[in-house]
Amino acid sequence: MGLMRIDYKKELETAAKRMILVHDPDVLIKMIVRTIVHKVQVTHASILLHRPDDGSYRLTVSRGSLGLKIPIGLVRVEKENPLIYFFKQRNEQLLFNDRVIMYDQLRSLTRRKNTEPKLKELLGQVLHQMELFDSVVCVPSMFRDELFGILLLGQKSNGRLFCREELDFFIALASHVTMAIRNAQLFKELERQLDKKHQLFIRTTIAFAAAIEAKDHYTHGHTTRVTNLSLELARRLKRQDRRLFNDKFLEGLHVASLLHDIGKIGISEAILNKEGVLSDEERARIREHPLIGVAILKPINELEDSILGIKYHHERHDGSGYPEGLKGDDIPLMASIISVADSFDAMTSTRPYRPCLYKDHAVEEIRRLSGQQFNPLVAGALVELHQEGRL
Amino acid sequence: MGLMRIDYKKELETAAKRMILVHDPDVLIKMIVRTIVHKVQVTHASILLHRPDDGSYRLTVSRGSLGLKIPIGLVRVEKENPLIYFFKQRNEQLLFNDRVIMYDQLRSLTRRKNTEPKLKELLGQVLHQMELFDSVVCVPSMFRDELFGILLLGQKSNGRLFCREELDFFIALASHVTMAIRNAQLFKELERQLDKKHQLFIRTTIAFAAAIEAKDHYTHGHTTRVTNLSLELARRLKRQDRRLFNDKFLEGLHVASLLHDIGKIGISEAILNKEGVLSDEERARIREHPLIGVAILKPINELEDSILGIKYHHERHDGSGYPEGLKGDDIPLMASIISVADSFDAMTSTRPYRPCLYKDHAVEEIRRLSGQQFNPLVAGALVELHQEGRL
Repeated sequence: MGLMRIDYKKELETAAKRMILVHDPDVLIKMIVRTIVHKVQVTHASILLHRPDDGSYRLTVSRGSLGLKIPIGLVRVEKENPLIYFFKQRNEQLLFNDRVIMYDQLRSLTRRKNTEPKLKELLGQVLHQMELFDSVVCVPSMFRDELFGILLLGQKSNGRLFCREELDFFIALASHVTMAIRNAQLFKELERQLDKKHQLFIRTTIAFAAAIEAKDHYTHGHTTRVTNLSLELARRLKRQDRRLFNDKFLEGLHVASLLHDIGKIGISEAILNKEGVLSDEERARIREHPLIGVAILKPINELEDSILGIKYHHERHDGSGYPEGLKGDDIPLMASIISVADSFDAMTSTRPYRPCLYKDHAVEEIRRLSGQQFNPLVAGALVELHQEGRL
Repeated sequence: MGLMRIDYKKELETAAKRMILVHDPDVLIKMIVRTIVHKVQVTHASILLHRPDDGSYRLTVSRGSLGLKIPIGLVRVEKENPLIYFFKQRNEQLLFNDRVIMYDQLRSLTRRKNTEPKLKELLGQVLHQMELFDSVVCVPSMFRDELFGILLLGQKSNGRLFCREELDFFIALASHVTMAIRNAQLFKELERQLDKKHQLFIRTTIAFAAAIEAKDHYTHGHTTRVTNLSLELARRLKRQDRRLFNDKFLEGLHVASLLHDIGKIGISEAILNKEGVLSDEERARIREHPLIGVAILKPINELEDSILGIKYHHERHDGSGYPEGLKGDDIPLMASIISVADSFDAMTSTRPYRPCLYKDHAVEEIRRLSGQQFNPLVAGALVELHQEGRL
């Protein structure tokens, strides 16, 4: 409750600077009302902000230490509300002090004899709204002739009247607020679009993977299961190394596991769906699928990491895998993760040439081959998931 | 050259408000230097702005009507430049007036007896830089302890010294500038990411379409040609109706034409690559490809429009097509465009059962079937493209 003089010019500077880099409209509005309440020492401050979706206005409130209560239900104000209507009319002659309206001035206007009855009625309704909001000063925020919002201020905590300097501060602040919120909204919209576009990319990839998987009669649901398990393994490994298993890695792994068998599109249906034992030649043809996958995705620079995950998902830790016979740490981690998930799903699925294993047996088998076929780090993560009952 | 008093507070307000919604950093910087030159009437104003890529600073200049020339080669300033070094040191005791440096004050400091020789040397170098830039006042812009930029000001056009109010204006402006440019950069970065993500989606779609096309031995390059011609037709039609053939339509058409034959993945290779005449049953199976395509893409809500383009690209204007026998305007325009492009490419390609037509003949055939097989609007656009030699 200090009586210090406030340098409003400096406060405005600080507020404006902080505002511009806050890109969440809700955070921004809370920040602004809090600034007012603390700097100007009012009982409460609130902002009525335009909602583009339905044209109504939504209220955000911040209370000072002596704050009075605003009815809790009042969070949405219709565009027909007299207060909104009054500012929308923009009847210049009605407004005082750069469009600010003050309760006392408005009331004295309603009591003048020469005020028109119709105007008196409107002013009466506006005063009633201000009473409901417990507000003594209202400052409109305009954006290109549209009423973007209204700043509603309670009384000063010390009971005095607002001085000219304080009103100027509110007017300047309201103007900054408009721009800052508008900026934040644009920013949020762009982020929303980016997320949508990412979802579009992922969903399209899932659809293609599913369509290609449908060609292979024995692998129904395989892609989804391998993808889920790969991501689960990576999240598990992230506990040990947050830097290595970061968001970029997880995104790359997501795409790589969805598309690990994409190369099967280049292998004839006769071989893919053959019942009975494959000839050496047919087996060799099937072993080409990682490289066919690479050839399909090669033009997509952004998928560089995922492509390596696809290329090497049939390598083995001891160097006995294909296509290149890479060993140990030369095999990209992304490929080692897909390898474990792929093998686990193959073991626990029925294939034409053998029955499926129970999960316990499959985990045991992968643990046994840790360091031979499988990367020990990843095999260990699978064992842990199993122990936690998350397989 | 008026001698009107300038309301700097108001100018700052206006500038800050305009700045926040300009999201192209280059436009923003030009706007700011122009504002200074015109409002404060200086011979020239420029901004040295930090480049995150290589740590150097880039110069943007605006000249007043009496502007002096700054050497044209000086557009890039290394981070080792004495002026940059001086502000980066942030040696508070050296700086006057809220970090602003003024040529005259700096020079008098170099002439004082008690100034250290080492400091004298640095100040001499800074003065030399200010002379090169023909600047009498420099105002730094800081962002979180980083030197974000420097505002360089020439002399006042009327030859007088800058007053306190003008310096304050520059300081406040420099502070706003930092935030506004930072905001613009973040915005641009987000737009760049959005564009990149779109490219990723399109490239992935192209890769999948190509992989699926490779299964059909007779259609090498077909997808690319149909896509290019579809887009060319739509751009042509846009001249007649900009609202209908807008960016959203073109984007949807792009995806639809890339994926118009995606359903062929569900048809067996034996039928697709059969040499000789197809049986009725085989033909019926091939005719299922639009609906198989729909089934594959159905989970992707965002592709709604494209899916309709794929579904109906074998409908005919007179109702004799498939899968639903839609007629005339009931057929989505996107599908009608793909139909013309698809037919034109089929006619001008060699197929196992017939030789290809010359382009002239194919166009003539499509013109002949306008209103029967083809939408007259689209057929007309093809004829026009042909007449202009753009086929």
